[in-house]
Amino acid sequence: MISRISILGTGLLGTSIGLALRAAGFKGNVSGWNRNRDQAQLALSMGAIDSVDGDPIAAARAAEVTVLAVPIYATIDFMEKLAGVLGPTHLLTDVGSTKLKITETAMRLYNTSGRAAFLPGHPMAGKERGGAALAEADLFRGAMWLFTPDPAAQLSPRGAELTMEWRELVVAMGAKTLDLDAARHDELVAWVSHLPQFTATALSALLEEEVGDAPELKDVGGRALREMTRLGSSPFSMWRDIAHTNTEAVQRALLALEQRLAHLRENLRTPALRDQFEQANKFRREP
Amino acid sequence: MISRISILGTGLLGTSIGLALRAAGFKGNVSGWNRNRDQAQLALSMGAIDSVDGDPIAAARAAEVTVLAVPIYATIDFMEKLAGVLGPTHLLTDVGSTKLKITETAMRLYNTSGRAAFLPGHPMAGKERGGAALAEADLFRGAMWLFTPDPAAQLSPRGAELTMEWRELVVAMGAKTLDLDAARHDELVAWVSHLPQFTATALSALLEEEVGDAPELKDVGGRALREMTRLGSSPFSMWRDIAHTNTEAVQRALLALEQRLAHLRENLRTPALRDQFEQANKFRREP
Repeated sequence: MISRISILGTGLLGTSIGLALRAAGFKGNVSGWNRNRDQAQLALSMGAIDSVDGDPIAAARAAEVTVLAVPIYATIDFMEKLAGVLGPTHLLTDVGSTKLKITETAMRLYNTSGRAAFLPGHPMAGKERGGAALAEADLFRGAMWLFTPDPAAQLSPRGAELTMEWRELVVAMGAKTLDLDAARHDELVAWVSHLPQFTATALSALLEEEVGDAPELKDVGGRALREMTRLGSSPFSMWRDIAHTNTEAVQRALLALEQRLAHLRENLRTPALRDQFEQANKFRREP
Repeated sequence: MISRISILGTGLLGTSIGLALRAAGFKGNVSGWNRNRDQAQLALSMGAIDSVDGDPIAAARAAEVTVLAVPIYATIDFMEKLAGVLGPTHLLTDVGSTKLKITETAMRLYNTSGRAAFLPGHPMAGKERGGAALAEADLFRGAMWLFTPDPAAQLSPRGAELTMEWRELVVAMGAKTLDLDAARHDELVAWVSHLPQFTATALSALLEEEVGDAPELKDVGGRALREMTRLGSSPFSMWRDIAHTNTEAVQRALLALEQRLAHLRENLRTPALRDQFEQANKFRREP
């Protein structure tokens, strides 16, 4: 069984993974590193990790499983730095929101004879604000944790074992897992995750311009407005890398929504509006 | 004090008003009518009303205050039918989501010497599905209840009294009230209520087309997707009248959102994306 896990990046996701591992009964050692050391200290004080690492490279070498819980480009940087340091007794995994670039990097630098294993992962869980302070042991309960494993991966026996055990731990944290092709993953999340985010950002930014100077009017909107703009709080720092690494799929989704909104706008008084409501009702029908 | 209230339309809002009046300690009689009598019987069995009315016109005549809790065009129909039946000892009020057409009708048929009083109202509360079964005594707690009174209204002494007492009951139901000019109301709700609804409808209808054939993929989206499409369940039957009576303002809001989405789409890899996130963050800043 895995005895030593290192979490690089103890923000919302990394710290929640530490808490969830404990809640799931994981008995091994969990250490954590964060670029901003305060966040790692906070994760330690919350019981998410057993110790704070000073050097992420040394921490990954000392662990059997290393979880990269940093933005996408930082994940790729770590993958490059760690490729020459880790070996066939190591598993590296990540939580990045787009998977094509990360999976391509994994095919280049990992998952071949003599090298460490890399399992690309993406828990569909998060909050509109980041940071260790908001972490929860239950963050992944009932959520999907997607994997985009390289079908051509040639794992060492220990690499294959660690991969299987990490998948078991993910299920023990309460998540449901699903394996997808990386390109299909990025296309799919463009629709079901990135499009909703960019829509909420556009709506919130627009409303800030239109009614932002009259804060009491936000109350007028009620629950519908609060829900439709909650993701407006999401930080650019996280979404920049997503916009950069899934640009074409997000552009296609945004353009399709623009066209759909124009269709509604042109049909506010025609029977075509009924069709759109009925199609929307179908999407939200109970399973 | 008001001793007799008639609710015409015991759906989600009408039945919730009955429940909220009781919870607020209203001691008078509350009767209810619904086009579909089952809904009125349900409201009765839930304790929202004391009796079911067979004839809405007679019910309004017998009451001091009549609440129209039906769609907008049905509200206007009732206003026309009741104008010749009610007199200066009656108050009529409504809960319609657009107020310009209703307020104009009120100026024409009510609020002059010898006629009944009409107070146009709009509680900013609701659910994505209607019907008495979903009614709640707390539906209006913390919500805004907007009024668009006619500044030229000439109320009878009893009409003025009933109006004041109804406003007090609305506050007793837990709502916050705000008076707005009817045109300003319709413009404002186009932004903070109708635009979020039509956006959710467009997004849900689009996603039904893109991923609707793979229902397990809806799970992938998680909380963000659920929130951004919850209003996709809203029934056309309610939104048709809103689309018809606030067309121009909703068109302006939809066009502005289309342009904002296009701006994001064209700037996924430029610093302008940061500006949009920062403006969206401002809209969602804590007050």
